[in-house]
Amino acid sequence: MPQLLEYLQVERIDRFLFTGNSPRRPSRIFGGQVLAQSLNAAIRSVEGGRVAHSMHAYFLRPGNPQKQIVFEVDPIRDGRSFATRRVVAKQEGLPIFNTSVSFQFDTPGLEHQACMPEAPAPESLKTDDEFWEELREKDPERYGSPLAPAIERRVVTRRDYQNPTPADPSQMAWFRALSSIDDNPALHQVVLAFMSDFALLGAALLPHPYTVHSNGMQVASLDHAIWFHRPARTDRYLLYALDSPNAGGSRGFSRGQFFTQDGLLVASTAQECLIRLRPEPTES
Amino acid sequence: MPQLLEYLQVERIDRFLFTGNSPRRPSRIFGGQVLAQSLNAAIRSVEGGRVAHSMHAYFLRPGNPQKQIVFEVDPIRDGRSFATRRVVAKQEGLPIFNTSVSFQFDTPGLEHQACMPEAPAPESLKTDDEFWEELREKDPERYGSPLAPAIERRVVTRRDYQNPTPADPSQMAWFRALSSIDDNPALHQVVLAFMSDFALLGAALLPHPYTVHSNGMQVASLDHAIWFHRPARTDRYLLYALDSPNAGGSRGFSRGQFFTQDGLLVASTAQECLIRLRPEPTES
Repeated sequence: MPQLLEYLQVERIDRFLFTGNSPRRPSRIFGGQVLAQSLNAAIRSVEGGRVAHSMHAYFLRPGNPQKQIVFEVDPIRDGRSFATRRVVAKQEGLPIFNTSVSFQFDTPGLEHQACMPEAPAPESLKTDDEFWEELREKDPERYGSPLAPAIERRVVTRRDYQNPTPADPSQMAWFRALSSIDDNPALHQVVLAFMSDFALLGAALLPHPYTVHSNGMQVASLDHAIWFHRPARTDRYLLYALDSPNAGGSRGFSRGQFFTQDGLLVASTAQECLIRLRPEPTES
Repeated sequence: MPQLLEYLQVERIDRFLFTGNSPRRPSRIFGGQVLAQSLNAAIRSVEGGRVAHSMHAYFLRPGNPQKQIVFEVDPIRDGRSFATRRVVAKQEGLPIFNTSVSFQFDTPGLEHQACMPEAPAPESLKTDDEFWEELREKDPERYGSPLAPAIERRVVTRRDYQNPTPADPSQMAWFRALSSIDDNPALHQVVLAFMSDFALLGAALLPHPYTVHSNGMQVASLDHAIWFHRPARTDRYLLYALDSPNAGGSRGFSRGQFFTQDGLLVASTAQECLIRLRPEPTES
């Protein structure tokens, strides 16, 4: 976990200017990393105890993990109740990502929430490491582990990656950070933002005979929205329940909900992703 | 309809600069108007046949209908497939609203969509005009008609506004523009953006013994997201199906889906709104 948290950190250059870096290994920056770093920059630019309650983002260009990222924060609003920050993440002067984040003082009010769907206990399910280890034995080139080693995921219903059959576009997975994280709610929001960019994209492929690993498949997150409903510890299991109400025009649309094991709805998400099937099969 | 379309129009001052105006009567600008005008400005700043497929917005400050609005467009990305525009709407130099809009060339791909829920035919339901006329007879001060006269709405299950009882947080309503609109898909997107800011907020109040007209109730749209899945005519009936998965922290979260009468899912929406109940009942 220290390694993950290190990469989700940003360094303050000036009041509204931050920089960040990436793990050097992957070929492009994982969207959840820029999402988490930008949220982190926004959080650090807001004073006086306001809490982030939502963010809306676009992924503009692929990020290069070999280069630093600059986060420019625009304090577009500092109101009595709400504060809003716009953040543009740039590499070499070009925007790779932009987001707006809204903050509010914690205020009690009317309460209701969607019920948590029934799900098997996380301990009864395989971790990604266990699942991918089996696949790697069959095809080591194709099946690299897709998750940061600091995050554990246990998917409730696994697809048959070698022979994917269409299914209803809904899925569930347990997520948690593998090391304990300080009891700072903002830190857990940053980690949740990181986690939330996993799995949404896959949900949009469920009704089709393809996975992200299929030949000729090109996928990418296009946008991302998170609504933080309640504080949550990301070092304890959270159920990420996903559905995909639409695909069309080479885009898939997915929605997610994070629940604690006690059934508390702590965040909602939404994302559109690019789904391109190249006409000629190529090696992925 | 000509009057509505007139107010959703924006005047071009320069390539990336537009102005707009509001109907003078209401005390503050309706969010859907700024949403539609900003989308319109973004659309007019994008060349070469790209179509808007999503937008994400924040309402920052109440708009004053007596003053003009300036729309500043930032062409943050012009890629090969996608173009993105950020728009800030200002009055007297202060941002009242900001949004990002993403555009893409129409490209075929994998297709699926959520099923349309069963709903009674629009003709079998009362229009808002008919419903509010009855309420106004009982309490003319409280129940002004909330919709622009150019838009017709027929709600499937009406709340008892004088004695609201808690219900499941899901609702449906038919919407259409009352005059015919040119066969220009972008124009219909602008009208759909306008329509989409109705009703989301009300869905978050359904599980509570309150409506937007209850004493002491203060509500406002905070953010707004639209995903345009397929072209749609807004001068034919569209079913707006809404649910609210969460309320808490003085905010309600709602999601919506627009279907054609043929069952085609044409757009998804999401919104968080402010819900404040003033402790001392006051005249609304």
